[in-house]
Amino acid sequence: MAKSVPYKIYLTENELPRRWYNIRADMKEQPDPIINPGTGKPLTQEELSGLFCTELAAQEMNHTDAFIDIPKEVQAFYKMFRPSPVVRAYCLEKALGTPAHIYYKFEGSNTSGSHKLNSAAAQVYYAKKQGITHLATETGAGQWGTALSMACGFFDVDLKVYMVKVSAEQKPYRKAVMETFGANVIPSPSDTTEVGRKILQANPGTGGSLGCAISEAIETAMTTENCRYVLGSVLDHVVLHQSVIGLEAKAALEKYDIYPDIIIGCAGGGSNLGGLIVPFVRDKLTGKANPHIIAVEPASCPTMTRGRYAYDFGDLGGTTPLLKMYTLGAGFIPAANHAGGLRYHGMSPIVSKLYHDGLLDEARAVEQTKVFDAATLFAKHEGTLIAPESAHAVRVAIDEAIKCRETGEAKTILFGLSGTGYFDMAAYMDYRSGEMVDFVPSDEDLERGFASLPTV
Amino acid sequence: MAKSVPYKIYLTENELPRRWYNIRADMKEQPDPIINPGTGKPLTQEELSGLFCTELAAQEMNHTDAFIDIPKEVQAFYKMFRPSPVVRAYCLEKALGTPAHIYYKFEGSNTSGSHKLNSAAAQVYYAKKQGITHLATETGAGQWGTALSMACGFFDVDLKVYMVKVSAEQKPYRKAVMETFGANVIPSPSDTTEVGRKILQANPGTGGSLGCAISEAIETAMTTENCRYVLGSVLDHVVLHQSVIGLEAKAALEKYDIYPDIIIGCAGGGSNLGGLIVPFVRDKLTGKANPHIIAVEPASCPTMTRGRYAYDFGDLGGTTPLLKMYTLGAGFIPAANHAGGLRYHGMSPIVSKLYHDGLLDEARAVEQTKVFDAATLFAKHEGTLIAPESAHAVRVAIDEAIKCRETGEAKTILFGLSGTGYFDMAAYMDYRSGEMVDFVPSDEDLERGFASLPTV
Repeated sequence: MAKSVPYKIYLTENELPRRWYNIRADMKEQPDPIINPGTGKPLTQEELSGLFCTELAAQEMNHTDAFIDIPKEVQAFYKMFRPSPVVRAYCLEKALGTPAHIYYKFEGSNTSGSHKLNSAAAQVYYAKKQGITHLATETGAGQWGTALSMACGFFDVDLKVYMVKVSAEQKPYRKAVMETFGANVIPSPSDTTEVGRKILQANPGTGGSLGCAISEAIETAMTTENCRYVLGSVLDHVVLHQSVIGLEAKAALEKYDIYPDIIIGCAGGGSNLGGLIVPFVRDKLTGKANPHIIAVEPASCPTMTRGRYAYDFGDLGGTTPLLKMYTLGAGFIPAANHAGGLRYHGMSPIVSKLYHDGLLDEARAVEQTKVFDAATLFAKHEGTLIAPESAHAVRVAIDEAIKCRETGEAKTILFGLSGTGYFDMAAYMDYRSGEMVDFVPSDEDLERGFASLPTV
Repeated sequence: MAKSVPYKIYLTENELPRRWYNIRADMKEQPDPIINPGTGKPLTQEELSGLFCTELAAQEMNHTDAFIDIPKEVQAFYKMFRPSPVVRAYCLEKALGTPAHIYYKFEGSNTSGSHKLNSAAAQVYYAKKQGITHLATETGAGQWGTALSMACGFFDVDLKVYMVKVSAEQKPYRKAVMETFGANVIPSPSDTTEVGRKILQANPGTGGSLGCAISEAIETAMTTENCRYVLGSVLDHVVLHQSVIGLEAKAALEKYDIYPDIIIGCAGGGSNLGGLIVPFVRDKLTGKANPHIIAVEPASCPTMTRGRYAYDFGDLGGTTPLLKMYTLGAGFIPAANHAGGLRYHGMSPIVSKLYHDGLLDEARAVEQTKVFDAATLFAKHEGTLIAPESAHAVRVAIDEAIKCRETGEAKTILFGLSGTGYFDMAAYMDYRSGEMVDFVPSDEDLERGFASLPTV
């Protein structure tokens, strides 16, 4: 008889992963290299070490070690907010009347409210170890900035967060959380950088953008003594750190002899999705199993479903190295009314490559009102008010469970619940008041974005 | 050798309590009975059943059954957000350089953000079982309203929450959370009740008060078909439900052969403190152990440290039954700048009686800037941004740990961390900006409150 599965499966502290999984070591074909736009040649680890701290630059380039030790200090930090459970969504299953078994890996049980803390902890630790005293980053909605503030507070590293001005004004409480952890939060564009001053002069009343905030953070990192830049998604070393999500999920399910038929994750920059799926993709690579893996993105920012697989800049200003990825073009701007997160024009090069090679089976775009329908249903039956980003995965998990109701199949569905929505209530209010509308970019909208792609 | 203690001690699902603990059955002297102010005589269960649903009225009167079964449906609801861990505050201990061992029972890992959900689940379940279709309550800061909204959403019971108008205006997001779970949130005073209309007529621009919101909720319960009133603290049946906190904490510590020397809880209406301590007070009653138990309250609302043990109304309007409790008088109004929660004038009759009889060893009043000092230190080292209410307990836990550093004693400290502060950032901002000031009421202030005490 199968073991009875509890509502929540917790690993014990001794069962927590002690190594991250680096899927690049197992991939038959590597993602195309990062290109230095100045030289047109592959970026060297040394070049990357000017921007990021040395260990992170090394991890970014590492395609030989399948497993990389999680430093003891990072393991200790992880124990503050982990284990994060795999939850059996019994109540949602009942509400849907589905024979499917629905599980979710919940990464929202920490003050930053998301999985971002997994990489923030690692990145700040390595900086501290190297003697770096200052870090700079940008944040849009604020989850990454909050996670990094927590890690910098803990490891006692000075942090400047350039927060998109309109976001800082709309979310003063999010800013206050970061400040409580000791971060210096600067609404961007600001007069603290040359690029910021230029933008302010050209656009006096601007509310800023993520592209602008990235440029200010990079300038600060490059011009401040003993300072580095840190990034919360997209890059390989971030997916590496986030592999802890998938490793834990797999280990927790294995305790009950469960293996998922379908794995679902929301995809913005790709760190949450990538972290969740890589250990399962390994099973595909070794022929051990073949789960159906689905990436979910907003219909208003359809990077994988309608984007191109091409080299592109990571930011609007074109100051970053070039990454080969699914992209809508750095010049693509999602509709202003888009409330559901996941607004990034590009996608993690690892996730992009897996999708390109068919190892990530499917990408699906969903409309935001449907996403909030799912979030509201989930809140009522599972008791957690989730981030709009995560609700994309919930939407597709519910859709798949409803299909099972129709076919009578008792499939096992695992999805990643990347975070909570406690600082996203304005979006929930728009949804409830009926002010939220769906937006699907036209082919012409997409062409305008693609026109911004660089020629490499 | 002692077992090595993990950062977080989780009970398994099978180890979760299946019964609540009713300390009244073990108390040598009972608290004085609730009085019907109309008759001047002890309130009967039948009288109470008009206001509360039948099972809760019965629990309120029960002083014979030491253990009361948690219904299966409530156990299932509990599994959505429990087990809640006992956490060893290793990082805080290290930061303080104390030989003390600090543990906290964390009740904030759910969307309502606090322990209130423990009683909300039970109260809504019993109402539903009785066929009650509507519930009415009041909320100030919003934790109770949110918890009740979650339970009503789950059990599909209609809910009206009268939310103090100034709070509803300052916390639109808190209101939005309740609405997402399906509650009807009405800023109080409102024109939906007679008492609300009267107050509005007399004070056109008023921001309302908890006393007024209680009166509106009670009127709604008494005048709406198939409706009952529900209360989130103070009463015996609420402390009964909250005993799950102490039962779990005790069971978790026992797994590692740990027994606390000091137990600390914050005290507003007393439900969190009461729930935490009752299983340990039982050990005092049976002579098994004698931990030092400390209740912590704000210096600006010093119910236990400077109040009187007397009969008083639960609300400002004098519409509730009379309770024998420590009280500052229903007419006592804490300073307007008080941000730290725990503003209630009275205290749970059970907690009051335990304190009066010396079974709750000590009450301590702390000033709010010191409370936020502790909250900020806790955030930095333990990674959780906590509710101002809970920070009162943290303040005293830190003070006791510092004493241990001075004496060299390795005492074991357990405190209750009742909730998170994600919707309390305005208070953190006041603290950081230096706008937060401390306030200690003068003896004259207290005399004005005592003058409102009824003569029984």
